[in-house]
Amino acid sequence: MTDFTGIAQPTLLLDERKCKANIACMAEKAKAANVIFRPHFKTHQSHEIGRWYRDAGVRCITVSSVKMAEYFANDGWEDITIAFPVNIREASTINLLAKKTKLNILIASSDNLENIRGAIDSGVSFFIKIDSGYHRTGFNPENISEIKECIHTLSDGGKMRFAGFLTHSGHTYHAKSKNEIAAIHTNTLHIFSALRKTFPDTEIIFSLGDTPSCSLAESFAGADEIRPGNFVFYDAQQLMLGSCREEQIAVCMACPVVAQHAERNEMIIYGGAVHFSKDKVTLPNGESVFGLCATINENGWEIIPDAYLVAVSQEHGIIRMPASGFSSYRSGSLIGVIPAHACLTADLMKAFQTTEGKKISMAGYL
Amino acid sequence: MTDFTGIAQPTLLLDERKCKANIACMAEKAKAANVIFRPHFKTHQSHEIGRWYRDAGVRCITVSSVKMAEYFANDGWEDITIAFPVNIREASTINLLAKKTKLNILIASSDNLENIRGAIDSGVSFFIKIDSGYHRTGFNPENISEIKECIHTLSDGGKMRFAGFLTHSGHTYHAKSKNEIAAIHTNTLHIFSALRKTFPDTEIIFSLGDTPSCSLAESFAGADEIRPGNFVFYDAQQLMLGSCREEQIAVCMACPVVAQHAERNEMIIYGGAVHFSKDKVTLPNGESVFGLCATINENGWEIIPDAYLVAVSQEHGIIRMPASGFSSYRSGSLIGVIPAHACLTADLMKAFQTTEGKKISMAGYL
Repeated sequence: MTDFTGIAQPTLLLDERKCKANIACMAEKAKAANVIFRPHFKTHQSHEIGRWYRDAGVRCITVSSVKMAEYFANDGWEDITIAFPVNIREASTINLLAKKTKLNILIASSDNLENIRGAIDSGVSFFIKIDSGYHRTGFNPENISEIKECIHTLSDGGKMRFAGFLTHSGHTYHAKSKNEIAAIHTNTLHIFSALRKTFPDTEIIFSLGDTPSCSLAESFAGADEIRPGNFVFYDAQQLMLGSCREEQIAVCMACPVVAQHAERNEMIIYGGAVHFSKDKVTLPNGESVFGLCATINENGWEIIPDAYLVAVSQEHGIIRMPASGFSSYRSGSLIGVIPAHACLTADLMKAFQTTEGKKISMAGYL
Repeated sequence: MTDFTGIAQPTLLLDERKCKANIACMAEKAKAANVIFRPHFKTHQSHEIGRWYRDAGVRCITVSSVKMAEYFANDGWEDITIAFPVNIREASTINLLAKKTKLNILIASSDNLENIRGAIDSGVSFFIKIDSGYHRTGFNPENISEIKECIHTLSDGGKMRFAGFLTHSGHTYHAKSKNEIAAIHTNTLHIFSALRKTFPDTEIIFSLGDTPSCSLAESFAGADEIRPGNFVFYDAQQLMLGSCREEQIAVCMACPVVAQHAERNEMIIYGGAVHFSKDKVTLPNGESVFGLCATINENGWEIIPDAYLVAVSQEHGIIRMPASGFSSYRSGSLIGVIPAHACLTADLMKAFQTTEGKKISMAGYL
């Protein structure tokens, strides 16, 4: 039980108990499925939360930038995949980092491979990014000759080691149902199975990674590794996708109310795009909002039905809620908002306050 | 002329010459119109850029948070309006700050006025926020009795001083034409004229502030003060609104290309939602994108026709451009992106690199 009355500015609350339960649950699922659990740390970007994973037995991690890899290597992580297309402008940092930690990088297209081969040291391993249907980046899994040529160019003559295939089925975030998520996941596993026939080497790893698939899947047969990240907190997008239950959401923004417009059932909060970012979540009625409102109480928070963060500008947020709930708030009250997308909100906030009152800092590399 | 080859990560380039010209142009316009120029500093959040304004004769400023007010007071600014509804949870900081700088706060609704009166010291002045049609927050200008009662409650018995009326016609950002912006601006001036009949005290200030109106208006008759902010950089939104010309845009992100997908005229850059935020700009064809692409050259940048930042995730950006321009880039190249909304991009980047090679830092209050 915590007293939140001292909160004066938008503050990202973290329920440590829920967060640790999310970690334990996914670690257990990976263990039961006999796959490597290599969680994505871009969601929390925090040494302290990283240690909670270590306490749960995790030894290898995923990050989305070279500086994030450095940040976690500095806290003793010794097996890191940078799941972002290799940026040869950072080759010298990558090579230095590879001297102190096992490092995997990502090759996402066959563009400029000779220069990558020249720039990256042989101590670095590489994954081939496979486009499993999200169409952000990666190799078409049917272009076997292109994939083979890429592997050959980069690994020939004792250069970089080929680590395996990696995919991120981010199109699950746009799925309309759990069945659709399941179908995408099954398709990813089929792609892996087909590739495995061509690349039967048992040393290579087939890695997949989105939170909706990893949360809902009953099988990872065909994959060797999972890399979910968002599940550590979950958020409004995951709740609407059905990837989590309300009681699993581990973060909530506490925001001061600063003005009321009862005539249109709206209130203004101190909490805008510089706190939440501008990602949206689509509600069952088709409307898109920036977050779900919640009451803040001494034990944490509880979602308020039909109350939403409907607009954000730089520092302002507009909350709309039914008149019935409206009277509980006035300027100076605190209201909670479950962010649409916790990863972007955490990146902006750079710190957490646990529901037990502890401060947890995030990466200070900016 | 500068060598940008050392840039390894997304970097916010600033053309100091264009930026200073934008400041000089708006200062000149305010002077000619005989209105106070109180620029909004939320766009740049930088002591150094603030000093460029000071060199142009500016002595009073606008900010959007108490901590931003503190940051600029620490650099010697002595007349600050916090153009955000007063947050009484920060009353003690506001009161402390008012001891070292002339401070104006904002009252945006008649909610909880007694507590505001009790919490804020008498040394602080207040503006009444008027809703001129944006409908984010503020008093309906026709509710004269509510406005009078608010002023009375807050200023009666020698409490806070009533400074005047303030509006932000943010709906100009959604205008479809320059004529529509002009009509919104004229309406704002009409609202001020009507209020002035009821509040004829010549001491009170009528303040308006959006960049589209201030950039395009030929007259401010009826207003005493202008508070534009974004014009210091301009951006893709302002260009599409017609508020600026291409050569006035003073910021551009330099991003490394990290993968190519020529088959769909797309390339992946290191530069995503954690660098640009997720604001969009609507193109003349109706499509919404996150930025306009530009070549980076030794003198700065130049917009590439029909090349856009079409998607962003946490660290990835997807650029789409015609095949003709595509061949000039490969993984490891630098490409420029004019952000949709410079304020949010600058807030995320926390630093600038001038086209002359100088580093400029921003607020470190996070």
